[in-house]
Amino acid sequence: MIATAPPFNGGAFPNVTIGDDVRAQHRLVTERFEIERLELVLGWSMGAEQTYEWAVRFPDMVKRALPFAGTAKTTPHDYIFVRSHEDALKSDPGWNNGFYKDQSDVHEGLRRHAQIWSVMGLCPDFYNKEAWREVGFTSLEDFLHRFWEAYFAPMDPNNLIWMGWKWRHGDVSRHTGGDLAAALGRIKAKTYVVPFSRDMFFPPADCEAEQKLIPNSKFRVVDSLWAHFAMFCMTHSERDQIDACIRDLLAEPVD
Amino acid sequence: MIATAPPFNGGAFPNVTIGDDVRAQHRLVTERFEIERLELVLGWSMGAEQTYEWAVRFPDMVKRALPFAGTAKTTPHDYIFVRSHEDALKSDPGWNNGFYKDQSDVHEGLRRHAQIWSVMGLCPDFYNKEAWREVGFTSLEDFLHRFWEAYFAPMDPNNLIWMGWKWRHGDVSRHTGGDLAAALGRIKAKTYVVPFSRDMFFPPADCEAEQKLIPNSKFRVVDSLWAHFAMFCMTHSERDQIDACIRDLLAEPVD
Repeated sequence: MIATAPPFNGGAFPNVTIGDDVRAQHRLVTERFEIERLELVLGWSMGAEQTYEWAVRFPDMVKRALPFAGTAKTTPHDYIFVRSHEDALKSDPGWNNGFYKDQSDVHEGLRRHAQIWSVMGLCPDFYNKEAWREVGFTSLEDFLHRFWEAYFAPMDPNNLIWMGWKWRHGDVSRHTGGDLAAALGRIKAKTYVVPFSRDMFFPPADCEAEQKLIPNSKFRVVDSLWAHFAMFCMTHSERDQIDACIRDLLAEPVD
Repeated sequence: MIATAPPFNGGAFPNVTIGDDVRAQHRLVTERFEIERLELVLGWSMGAEQTYEWAVRFPDMVKRALPFAGTAKTTPHDYIFVRSHEDALKSDPGWNNGFYKDQSDVHEGLRRHAQIWSVMGLCPDFYNKEAWREVGFTSLEDFLHRFWEAYFAPMDPNNLIWMGWKWRHGDVSRHTGGDLAAALGRIKAKTYVVPFSRDMFFPPADCEAEQKLIPNSKFRVVDSLWAHFAMFCMTHSERDQIDACIRDLLAEPVD
């Protein structure tokens, strides 16, 4: 991994917000690439948070917005869910306030973190139907090890924890003194709000409540046993549905 | 707490199944109280597991059965959910393979365990609507401390872990060589299967799938923001609905 130089190394890295991300992206796009308007801004999960931030912060620049499986303002349920990830990582005896030598020193915390994800990241139906078989896993334990642990084990715990902080503080209503309706009302982009049917922590109802506050928007649901991880497109069904959302939105006439 | 004497003290306590529970209850009821038939067997969560076990194991003895928010066979999703509780408790530096001196030595594990419950034990809607206000809590943090941590902090970690093992191995199809339909088909009791509308780990769909395998049964859903914890009857609405289930089932004519 690429380590940040002191004094901002390890556990001393500063907190960064979704707004900071989007300001940096905006500078890249405008100053380096000299792009004035964007045909489409899209993203999944925390990428959906960035998408909302783009559409609220730069309403004249974003023609179309497509947040997949994410919210404009983090719900309290997600806030405590994400905090449990951070706690799982920090529970490792090797955590050392973020000043471990190597990310593998925190492998127990990374496994605990993967375990929490295995419960909330998918859903009862997924496991009941053993949907992992269709994509090449041979048993539940095999799936837990080679999917969940394999996904998170190589990651850097500090990076996960700092992303978690960013996620749980995501809130476009910061632009409007806490008024979410006012913030989302600013959006000029043609917007498709697209949750995934069995998502345990971005349930369609939470996304629909926000969609109703966006003037020129549509609500579509991607149906998948893969819950929040439908975006991985592990089967053709997810890819077809997600591609259709992108294709249809790009075909929408905009000013 | 009452400690078990060696050699079965602390982490050396043997695993016990739902079937063991029900055999002990059966002996108490028949040998001590000399009761031959039961008007109603009912229970919540793991008590629902016991209810199913009673109805399958002693079909001629149980006239009516009322499992609330639980399953006859533990689903794989619940299996991994419950295992994460055990891992959270064991992550405490004071765990010592179950041979801690006092349960409060494992207070970090108990808090981590409470945190996992705060995410899956309730649901997004509960937290969105701040349903904790109605029952006297003043903030999300107040609710997390004075409800979740207060509930679990006094409990014994070994007891929680052994109950967890029992929960995740619950399966009435053990009586029929793994054939769940055959096991549930044995039930002679008039049965109401009653899940709670927003339960994150005993979702109504899982309960309904089992209800369809029970000959003389009905499916009813208790609607509540309190998800799995509707059984705590924190508001009148839950108590009224749960009382109605019991009253209606007791009024059903049986042989």
